[in-house]
Amino acid sequence: MAAKDIFHETVRKALETDGWTITDDPLLLPLGERKLYVDLGAEKLLTANKEDQYIAVEVKSFVGNSIMSELEKAVGQYTLYRQSLRIQQSNRQLYLAIPTDAYVELSTDKLISIIQEDLGMKLLVYNPTTKLIELWLP
Amino acid sequence: MAAKDIFHETVRKALETDGWTITDDPLLLPLGERKLYVDLGAEKLLTANKEDQYIAVEVKSFVGNSIMSELEKAVGQYTLYRQSLRIQQSNRQLYLAIPTDAYVELSTDKLISIIQEDLGMKLLVYNPTTKLIELWLP
Repeated sequence: MAAKDIFHETVRKALETDGWTITDDPLLLPLGERKLYVDLGAEKLLTANKEDQYIAVEVKSFVGNSIMSELEKAVGQYTLYRQSLRIQQSNRQLYLAIPTDAYVELSTDKLISIIQEDLGMKLLVYNPTTKLIELWLP
Repeated sequence: MAAKDIFHETVRKALETDGWTITDDPLLLPLGERKLYVDLGAEKLLTANKEDQYIAVEVKSFVGNSIMSELEKAVGQYTLYRQSLRIQQSNRQLYLAIPTDAYVELSTDKLISIIQEDLGMKLLVYNPTTKLIELWLP
């Protein structure tokens, strides 16, 4: 199994452990005349207001290519998926899932704040060893 | 010479024919602790107000991978380069250079208006055969 697929399964399991139900694998999103494929769609009942919360998750392994090349691809995918959700007036929240080591490296390089604050991207940090979600940003 | 490099030279020549002076090949942009590399930096004296106009151009060939995969990468690069220019408060305008056939395909798929209007990306359409710039958007 390729590294990419291993991380996909890891994030799927991490979301399930966190109480999410996987509804789509992959999740199809329309854009213009095309279809885009986000890795996972999931939902969770929030007991506070008894409303379902919906998310779409694009999984990145940051294995192989340079971290900047992976980041460029991830930012492009996120931007197009988010635009599709906006056009559909969807209330589904979009998350980019990145492994702990990439999160540490991007933080050291002062890129996390740019991605999160300047570009408004939501992040989910997963630990490939424990198969758990470590952080939701924001 | 790889297709990517051929198109790089094509756009360089097309800009020169259009009266631009190439100042950087590539143009380095800082982002956090990293450096990003945009394909070309150029300048032109606008006779109307005697002021120099500065641009940065990222060249895409749309040869090889699927058009959506290329587009994702291009949108990510553009988004990060633009953010670097914003942080620097630069007055350099950023353009994504795409060949005529990709422009036609993306227009047919109703993606050009999304890229240009929704995402605010500036495009430069070049003709790989005539080695001329056909369109500046906007």
